[in-house]
Order: sequence, then C-alpha cells, then structure tokens
Amino acid sequence: MKNNPLEKLKTQLDIIFNPSSVAVIGASRDPMKVGHVVLRNIVEAGYKGRIAPVNPKAHEILGLKAYTSLLEVPFPVDLAIIVIPAPFVPQAMRECGEKRVKAIVVISGGFSEVDEEGEALEKEVLEIAEEAGIRVVGPNCQGINNTHVGLCATWPLIKCKGGISLITQSGTLGAAFSCWAEEEGIGISKCVNLGNKADLNELDFLRYFGEDKESRVIAFYIEGVSDGRKFMDIASDISKRKPLIALKGGRSPAGSRAVFSHTGSMAGSDAVFDAVFKQTGVIRAKSLEEFYDFAKVLAYLPLPEGRGVFIVTSTGGSGILAADACEDAGLTLTEPSEEALKRLRSQLPSRCTFRNPFDLTTTTADKFRLVIEENGGNPDIHGFIAIFGDPIPNAAEEIKAASESVKKPILVAYLGGGEVEKVEKTKMHSLGIPVFPSPERAVAAYSALVKYSEFRKRTENSLID
Amino acid sequence: MKNNPLEKLKTQLDIIFNPSSVAVIGASRDPMKVGHVVLRNIVEAGYKGRIAPVNPKAHEILGLKAYTSLLEVPFPVDLAIIVIPAPFVPQAMRECGEKRVKAIVVISGGFSEVDEEGEALEKEVLEIAEEAGIRVVGPNCQGINNTHVGLCATWPLIKCKGGISLITQSGTLGAAFSCWAEEEGIGISKCVNLGNKADLNELDFLRYFGEDKESRVIAFYIEGVSDGRKFMDIASDISKRKPLIALKGGRSPAGSRAVFSHTGSMAGSDAVFDAVFKQTGVIRAKSLEEFYDFAKVLAYLPLPEGRGVFIVTSTGGSGILAADACEDAGLTLTEPSEEALKRLRSQLPSRCTFRNPFDLTTTTADKFRLVIEENGGNPDIHGFIAIFGDPIPNAAEEIKAASESVKKPILVAYLGGGEVEKVEKTKMHSLGIPVFPSPERAVAAYSALVKYSEFRKRTENSLID
Repeated sequence: MKNNPLEKLKTQLDIIFNPSSVAVIGASRDPMKVGHVVLRNIVEAGYKGRIAPVNPKAHEILGLKAYTSLLEVPFPVDLAIIVIPAPFVPQAMRECGEKRVKAIVVISGGFSEVDEEGEALEKEVLEIAEEAGIRVVGPNCQGINNTHVGLCATWPLIKCKGGISLITQSGTLGAAFSCWAEEEGIGISKCVNLGNKADLNELDFLRYFGEDKESRVIAFYIEGVSDGRKFMDIASDISKRKPLIALKGGRSPAGSRAVFSHTGSMAGSDAVFDAVFKQTGVIRAKSLEEFYDFAKVLAYLPLPEGRGVFIVTSTGGSGILAADACEDAGLTLTEPSEEALKRLRSQLPSRCTFRNPFDLTTTTADKFRLVIEENGGNPDIHGFIAIFGDPIPNAAEEIKAASESVKKPILVAYLGGGEVEKVEKTKMHSLGIPVFPSPERAVAAYSALVKYSEFRKRTENSLID
Repeated sequence: MKNNPLEKLKTQLDIIFNPSSVAVIGASRDPMKVGHVVLRNIVEAGYKGRIAPVNPKAHEILGLKAYTSLLEVPFPVDLAIIVIPAPFVPQAMRECGEKRVKAIVVISGGFSEVDEEGEALEKEVLEIAEEAGIRVVGPNCQGINNTHVGLCATWPLIKCKGGISLITQSGTLGAAFSCWAEEEGIGISKCVNLGNKADLNELDFLRYFGEDKESRVIAFYIEGVSDGRKFMDIASDISKRKPLIALKGGRSPAGSRAVFSHTGSMAGSDAVFDAVFKQTGVIRAKSLEEFYDFAKVLAYLPLPEGRGVFIVTSTGGSGILAADACEDAGLTLTEPSEEALKRLRSQLPSRCTFRNPFDLTTTTADKFRLVIEENGGNPDIHGFIAIFGDPIPNAAEEIKAASESVKKPILVAYLGGGEVEKVEKTKMHSLGIPVFPSPERAVAAYSALVKYSEFRKRTENSLID
C-alpha cells in the first residue's frame, strides 16, 4: 500500500498536521519575534505532543526547556518549524536530516522571492531535504495549523475547531479567514500557508485534504497553479466528494502584475481559470468575504435539491433586499401552497404578509419555525432563508428544531438585534447553523450552496448515464 | 423668517430631534414590551430633558414617576412617543392636542399597512394632528434617535455619536446600520424611521438633514419616493453640499412585489431610479453593507482630487485583491515617481515590492507612514489605501500622522491581525479613520469617495461656466 503515491503523500502530510513532537528552530524569548509568537501559539493552542524550542542562547522559553541545538533534543522530533534567518537555514536542514526529522515548515523568508542569491539558497535547501527524504512547506510562509490537535504553528492564535481546511498562497488572507472563523465560533480544521512552494504545493494539499475526513470543505487562495492539467484532474475528483472553494488573485492586468511581484507566479488568463473552475465544480468566490461565506455555508448545511427558496422574515425591508438578490442569482421564490397558507392564516395575525418573502412583522422565534415547518413539505421549496430583524431571543433553538424537522437547508441572516443578536449568533454557530450579517450576503452564500448542489447532480447523472 | 417653508419645517423637526421634554404614551413595566424598551433606551442613552412615562396603571416605571394620563403631566411636553394599540391612538392624539404637544412619533402599527379599517384610523389620526398643528412621524415605525442629545426613542440602544444621519423605510435596516456604527465606534447623528409616512416623509427629512450641521452625510433606505420631481430638486440641491447615499429596495420584479406588500409603495422602474440618482449626485449602494461602508467613508474622509490611488500593504495577497478591485472600479494605480522610489529604496529592505501596490512584507506601522509621505506630493496620486495584514501595533497613530501631513484621503483595511487588529481598529475609528475588513470593501468604499468627488467637480464647474 505504501507504494501507492497517494498513500505515501498521506503518510508524509499526516506528519505535518499530526506530529508526535515539534521543534521550533529559532524559538525566541522576545515577544515581538516570530520565533516567540509561533512557539507561544503552539503552547496556547494546547498542543499535547512534546515541544522542543531550539535557541543557541536560551535555557528556557515560555517555561519549556530550550536546547542550544536540535541535535541535543533527547527525544525524536517529527516536525521542525524553522524561523531563523535564511542563510542559516541550510545548516539547520542538515541537522534535521541527522536528527531524522520527518517534515519541515520553513517560515523564514529571504529565498527565491527576494533575489538570485535567495533562489540559490532555496535550491540548496530543497536538495538537502530531498537527500534526507524530508518534505518541506515553504519557505517564506506563515506556517501551518491543525486546530484538532492544537498545533497553531502560525499567527495569530487560532484555536476554534471546525470543518474548513485552508490552502493559501497569502499568509494574511489565510489569517483573516481564520480570524473570522475564530471570532464567529465557526472554526477551521487545518490551514497551510504555501509560501514559495519549493517542495509541497497546492496540489499536494488538495489531494491530502481531499482524503482527510476532518476537512469537510477545502478553501484555497491561489495566484496561479503549479500544473494546470494535474489541477483539473485533482479538483474534478475531489469536487465529486466535497466542496472546493477558490479565491484567485490577479484577475485583472493590474492584479496580474502584482501577482508576479508577490510570488513570481503567472496569474494566467482569468477566462481560462473561470472555465476550469466551472468544469471541475470548484465554486469561485469573487471576494475575500465571499470566500469565507461560501466555505462557511458549504461546511455546515445540507445541499438543496433545487433552486426554489423560501424567505421568512420579521423585517420587510430585508425581505425585499433578499428578494432582489435572489432574482439576481437566478433563485426561484416559490409561493406557499394554498393549504399551507390556510394553516398559517389560522395561526398568525393578519398583519403578516402571507407570501414569499413571508413577513411576520413583529414576532417571536417560534413563528419562524412554524412558517418553515408549514412549508417544509412543499416539493418546490428546496431550502429556507430566515431573516431575523429586531432582538429576537431563542432564534437558535427554533431554527435548530426546524432544521431537524424539515431536513432541508436553512440559512440565517440576523441584523438589527443588538446584544440579543450576538447571543443568538454565537448559539447558532455552535449548533452548526451559519448566520450572515446582511440579506445580500445570506443570498450569495445560499447561491453557492445551490451551485455546488447542481454540480453534484450533473456529475452523479453523468456517472449513471 | 418663520413664513419661509424651509424655516418652518426646520423649527418643527427641531422639536422632534431636540425636544425639551418627552412623554412615552404606553410606557410599560414589562421588559419584553416595546413601551418599556423605548423608555429604557431614552433613559439609558442619557437624555437630559424631562421624561414622562404615561401608563394608566403604573405609578413608577424604571424609577421615573409615571402618569395615568398625558393630561396629568405637570410640565409642558414637546414630543410624544406613542406605543399603544392602534384603536387607542386617536384618543391619545386628541390629548396631545389638548396638552399642546408639538410633535408625535407613532410607533404603533395596525394602520394603513394592515387593512381598510387601519387606513381609516390612520386618516383620523392625521386629521387630529392637522387640526392641532402637530407634525407626525409614522405610524407603524421604529421611532427616532438623536445620539447627540441621548434621545434613543427606538431600539436597540444606540448611543455612539457620529456624523451620519439616517432616513429609513425599514426599521431593521436602520437598526442594522446603527448597530454596526455603534459597534465600530463610528456612530450616527440622527435616525428617523418613516413607517407609513402619513404626514412627514423622506423629502421632509432630507431637507431637514440637508440643513443640519451635525449631519455630515445623509443615508436613506427607500422603497419608493413620495414625489419624484420634488425628490430630484431636493436631492440635487443637497448633493452640492453634502453626500447623499441611497439604498433602494425592489430593484427586481420579485423585490417590487415584496415592496408593495411591505409599504404599499410602487417600487417604480429601477432604471429610472438609477438615472435619477446619477443625475442628482446620489451615491447608490448595491447592498446593505455598501450602504453602511459608503456612508462611513464619506462622513470621515476628505474627497480625492482624481482617480489616482496608491496602495501600500504588508500583505501581498491583499494588495493583489485590491489591485483587481481597483481595476474593476476604474481607479488608476499610479506608479511612484523615480525620486520617491530612490528615497524609499534607501530606507527600506530590498524584499519590499517597490511599485503600486507597494508591498512592505513583514513590517511596522511607521513604514506605512513613510511610504505614504514619500508619495504624498505626487500630483497623480490623489489618495491612499493602506492594508495592514498581521498584528501591527500603532497603525492608528501612524496613519493619523500621515493623514495630517499629506492632506489626502487615506482609507484603511485591516485583516488577519487578531487582538491587535481590534485595538487598532477601535483607535482608528475614534480618530476618524475609516477601517474596512477586506481589500474589496476598502476599494468599493474608496470608489464611492471618488464618485462623489467627481459629481462635486462637475457641479462646481457647471456653476462656473
């Protein structure tokens, strides 16, 4: 089995995300240094394996025994995180080889992204790694994270466990995504910063996350791809099983020029990327917020069976904005059946708007559930968008109950609710109900769900044919 | 002077936003009732005038002496907030007339928005008001707010003082906007919920806020306008002095139908609204978040003299996304002059990308200021977008200093910065520097600034011609 290339890759990358022990080469006592921050984040995220700070001058850092050299560490080291200046990296790599370290993340910059000298250094590093049979992430990257084992070898500190795995060619964009997920309690599963991709690239991590059960959704920010043909094969294969969400930098001429300055990638023709994403079922986000929103909704909601959506709201204005957005997105606002209307009219005040969007006006959370459940059996309604305006308590519990009874996706927007909104939003996220801050963002996220559902249907049908 | 209609309107509306005393008719002891929430918010927002809770059964509410009838209140009442069931509103209005109340906000629903009976009731209310010479906001509205005097006669509680005044046909959309402004420390100036517009409508408040010094920007959510011709006259007039930002519900057929259900307005042809907004210089937002972002940037930044924008960033990926968005928006990414480049190369490490976007890579906040100041005199650079990735302390102080020295708009995006980001963002907002959560939202907001600046130039030129 180990001769199977995918199995081999899996074994190698498992070490990166689930090492038994980690060394931080370049661990620092100075709280402003990356070598300190990374060590502190691994400790504070609750990593349970053994940790070896390596620093030629320190005996102890953050309460951990420090070692003057990697070779002095008295236990085996699975993963080394390197945060020392570039010229010292080759020597550190050699020691990693001697110590039989299994994988390395090189955070240090100063390689091929800088100049020819750096390029030569990067080549040297890669040769040492290949000779020692060590896989490398980076160099010039913002590290890695696996929240499920508390391995936050990156920054800022991200601890919240979730179902989204991230591959990113930009440290900050991955960090921004992770910060939002942390703050909302959505969490992430794993995150890898590609950096210069001297060895491991986006294709390797796509394949790995594609097999990883904890990665329900894979979101990737790229500026180019290492091998277009391979990318298509891998993406098509994974998309059949789990959603892939892409954000591609360098759509425009100005952006392409900036891409070349940033990572030396050729941004490539945007029309080609667009076509490739469509064909392979990759859901493309147009902005960083969409990137996050799409991943969030696809990680948590079941897929709708069609384009029919029902909007229930306590805020007329938001219902209107959502209806406008649904029409833009090609979603169908299915009207309630006569029978459903009859049942609802007997249970709700006449001031409600008995259609789609269904406006409850001033109301309580149980009425949202009532409207959803009374329309839940309608075969032309494939999912719901519930928009809470005002401070409406218990929204989370009622939507959770409605989800369980109708077994169709229910997506929530919550706005204008002050402190109650914050409480309900946190509860909903912990219950796996994605909440969005505006009607338009809710509809855009819902559309991503529909788009991926339609791709899955097409591929399943083509398998049957 | 009082015979001048605008002066008369000003006097009447001043009473609504700056009353010496307020009665809450329908004040309640039950914390779940609107009549309690509104009274509590007025108290908690720190309103300094006299407050008279009116409730036939209570002697005291929230520590305030309560009165069984408005007529028992021993002091004059400027403004009455009515939150009793619709059928009792006419009698309350008559008592307001007897008590010589000067203005009324009817929060209660159950009028023309419900049925013919409600329509008749609304007509009766309006007749009583006209006879007594009292101006009315609503009925069926979410109240009013003036943060500058702590008059939060609405919900949720909004206290933060700012420069944006809001006119809204949807309570929740106004509340959502206000909540965001509260949370970010941006604040609002005044907010009025129009409700059924039985008497006062959006045109009245546009004219009032147009003259109001505390309203630096007017943002309005509408589903239709009461008088198209008048709207154009008023909007054109105000746009010459201060920015108007519009969000219009009912762009699509589905949305138009929902508009009619919500407020009985005819949404009208969207193409006509688009043309009207363009002609009158109203900046149109496509979504609720844009509505907020545009108001925020226009309330705080000076106008750029042209389309040339310079991006300085510590995050290459964000710079690329911003460059893509600038190109979409028709902004020009002006390259730095040779002299500026020379000066910067001598002061910054070679790993930086010395062009536009200018990528500082790992850096400190003072370097952002350096890059901005070294390019500040370039006549083809009319403004800056500074994008902070990573936790970068003192961003606020350095951007403030740069703003003061270059005297051109500087807009900030801050992302991936964890706890440091939160601290810096709060500081920047308190210093009047608008911060956005993503590169794309930053660029969209910057474009609104450019769009309004170009409108102002056109009108100023046409005045000169």
